[in-house]
Amino acid sequence: MTRKELKEVVWQTNLDLVKHGLVIFTWGNVSAIDRNEGIVAIKPSGISYDDMKPEDMVLLDIEGNVVEGKWKPSSDTPTHLALYRAFEGIGGVVHTHSTFATSWAQAGCDIPNIGTTHADYFSQAIPCTRAMTEAEVKGEYELETGNVIIERFQGINPVHVPGVLVKNHGPFSWGKDAHDAVHNAVVMEQVAKMAFVAYSVNPQLQMNPLLVEKHFMRKHGPNAYYGQ
Amino acid sequence: MTRKELKEVVWQTNLDLVKHGLVIFTWGNVSAIDRNEGIVAIKPSGISYDDMKPEDMVLLDIEGNVVEGKWKPSSDTPTHLALYRAFEGIGGVVHTHSTFATSWAQAGCDIPNIGTTHADYFSQAIPCTRAMTEAEVKGEYELETGNVIIERFQGINPVHVPGVLVKNHGPFSWGKDAHDAVHNAVVMEQVAKMAFVAYSVNPQLQMNPLLVEKHFMRKHGPNAYYGQ
Amino acid sequence: MTRKELKEVVWQTNLDLVKHGLVIFTWGNVSAIDRNEGIVAIKPSGISYDDMKPEDMVLLDIEGNVVEGKWKPSSDTPTHLALYRAFEGIGGVVHTHSTFATSWAQAGCDIPNIGTTHADYFSQAIPCTRAMTEAEVKGEYELETGNVIIERFQGINPVHVPGVLVKNHGPFSWGKDAHDAVHNAVVMEQVAKMAFVAYSVNPQLQMNPLLVEKHFMRKHGPNAYYGQ
Amino acid sequence: MTRKELKEVVWQTNLDLVKHGLVIFTWGNVSAIDRNEGIVAIKPSGISYDDMKPEDMVLLDIEGNVVEGKWKPSSDTPTHLALYRAFEGIGGVVHTHSTFATSWAQAGCDIPNIGTTHADYFSQAIPCTRAMTEAEVKGEYELETGNVIIERFQGINPVHVPGVLVKNHGPFSWGKDAHDAVHNAVVMEQVAKMAFVAYSVNPQLQMNPLLVEKHFMRKHGPNAYYGQ
Repeated sequence: MTRKELKEVVWQTNLDLVKHGLVIFTWGNVSAIDRNEGIVAIKPSGISYDDMKPEDMVLLDIEGNVVEGKWKPSSDTPTHLALYRAFEGIGGVVHTHSTFATSWAQAGCDIPNIGTTHADYFSQAIPCTRAMTEAEVKGEYELETGNVIIERFQGINPVHVPGVLVKNHGPFSWGKDAHDAVHNAVVMEQVAKMAFVAYSVNPQLQMNPLLVEKHFMRKHGPNAYYGQ
Repeated sequence: MTRKELKEVVWQTNLDLVKHGLVIFTWGNVSAIDRNEGIVAIKPSGISYDDMKPEDMVLLDIEGNVVEGKWKPSSDTPTHLALYRAFEGIGGVVHTHSTFATSWAQAGCDIPNIGTTHADYFSQAIPCTRAMTEAEVKGEYELETGNVIIERFQGINPVHVPGVLVKNHGPFSWGKDAHDAVHNAVVMEQVAKMAFVAYSVNPQLQMNPLLVEKHFMRKHGPNAYYGQ
Repeated sequence: MTRKELKEVVWQTNLDLVKHGLVIFTWGNVSAIDRNEGIVAIKPSGISYDDMKPEDMVLLDIEGNVVEGKWKPSSDTPTHLALYRAFEGIGGVVHTHSTFATSWAQAGCDIPNIGTTHADYFSQAIPCTRAMTEAEVKGEYELETGNVIIERFQGINPVHVPGVLVKNHGPFSWGKDAHDAVHNAVVMEQVAKMAFVAYSVNPQLQMNPLLVEKHFMRKHGPNAYYGQ
Repeated sequence: MTRKELKEVVWQTNLDLVKHGLVIFTWGNVSAIDRNEGIVAIKPSGISYDDMKPEDMVLLDIEGNVVEGKWKPSSDTPTHLALYRAFEGIGGVVHTHSTFATSWAQAGCDIPNIGTTHADYFSQAIPCTRAMTEAEVKGEYELETGNVIIERFQGINPVHVPGVLVKNHGPFSWGKDAHDAVHNAVVMEQVAKMAFVAYSVNPQLQMNPLLVEKHFMRKHGPNAYYGQ
């Protein structure tokens, strides 16, 4: 992929957040990485989605040094970069404040895997991180946000669980590329809404764990065959 | 109906799912049967709604043998075919992951018939299936999904109850043709939303059973006279 | 007003129900009365909103005899006519199955007057009717629906409380003309939604009765001065 | 700013309320002040958003004397003016009946600061005013509405908490100019919706107070660096 193409993908997927109703104002950002070149493209800081052009995207190396671009990168850049460094299988990262996923993050709860809609994309619950410490919040906060995500994924395969809730903050998702990360952000918002309604209808609801495995594996397992 | 017309109807009604806000991405499918010819048309597997054309629809016989089409049929095809074999009065089948109906399916609860909106289309509660067994999930899963629906309808007339919730999964609906099945999918989503709100407002609410009979019969009984 | 104008108003306000998101399919109807001529215009039965033209509206006298029109009037016509006969101050009637107002009707609860949005239009709670008897449901059901509304308004001025919930069914609203009745249908849906959320947030909430009187009177009292 | 520009800003921001889904009918108003000239522009009373033109905006001095304009100013004008007189740092005021913020006002509850979406704009909870007394409601009601807001802000910096819920009524917000006040109205509606969902999911949820300070200060503090 050329740098121009990388910037276009990141520009397009940032606009897709608006199209899918996941962000208002500038409350979201998408990045993508070119693993061969070691280059990350990300949305510039505080620029309105209406005005953004592909050439406004900022290019950085994986340590955060700006390689190309006239704007400051998104303030959330250190979180994105921490995820790229820790999760080698991912090619795109999305952060939003989408309504229902953010509400679950504010509730401080994992979203339990209670339906096939969820199981089609996530092999288990969508985890919520622990509360951040004073040292983390007052230190390199955005980097530490990445670190509490990574800590939460000890023993979890991020390719099988492509998203997280940062406690009292909001969702991050990822995927094999930026389009896939946006797709997973839409899924998280949708399953967050459904889980809110489902638990209101029946607080004692029970998931069938066989369905979680079946739905995840028929789509993502070695013998995947699924397409609706 | 010609094969071309059958494919056009199925193509159109699949797009109608999007228009009615019942699906995002490819999370839904519609099929229709020509009972005279014994031919079922269904959406192809994993094709985006934006790109689909009438000629992409797949034609099968009622046992699932492909008769015409260059794509794989939807993975949910065995469920559709089981319903056509068991419920002779139906001409179209719809599956979606629409938000509120899916939430009730995740809750594992029948949607009680608590209003005339519901009673105008369903003569009783919208039933929810039982949990599937390990043998069913690990066996011919999509076919067994059809079988648990059929089991749940023992003693229920599927023409009077044109939809079901598959537990922890989502809604299926049907009708005399594909348009009618989509119509009933919209109804299920709407009554699922209303029931969620109504029980939140008053968990002890009581339906008047006389109204269920009256509303269903004035629209579907032998002396039907209803039109709003 | 000419008959042509009366039909155009009723046609337009039926379409307004769709524009305001109050109806899907044909789940609603608007009528208007010309008190001088004793003529009521109402939506025809079961005709889709997309296809309706002004000349499809049906004209009746207040007893229900068709005066002009090629279609059957809406099945709900006897309810509309009962309201015109009983409530002399009204010029238009609306029936919908709008989501939140219908949910409160299904819950069988009055919508308490808990905010100024509500008090700007209704001088008290929006009442819910009692359960209908077997004789009423099996008799002239649509007429009896009007009668239980009228019974519920004993001691209530329908001009000060321009709407009602029919238990387990849905909302009716009215106004000085058809436009005003549609306006009040929008208000009912909005206050029903807000009351659902407000009681979820605080089941012990208390309204200030002084505000109900103040807001209703500054807009509808003899010294009305209000406009936002 | 010329008077013409002031009127155009107020006209535009009133239309923005509709664009952001914060008002239906005429249920909202925006004003702006030119502090140098001592002139306030506000929406005229009861004029539909569709018909309004910039020249319809009403100009007043800060005591409420009309300086220019052919219409009556919004009935809520005395509330706006009280806020301009008391809160010197603000340049625009917005009042709406937006769904979720109004629901919290009806509930009579402060919206707790439970997420970074909230903390990015408000340094603490969004306060709700006390119940108004009979003297206040029957006296200069709209002025007294301003006064109970001002009373509630004793010890609170209105620049750091740019909005309030008036009990049983609805939200007011403000900002450095009218655009900023509308922006804060959108934020209030969004955080009100999220808080409703979050408390439904987990009534015992806990906010991390470190995050409130961090998010507010990184955007509004002396060393602000934030942009998403």
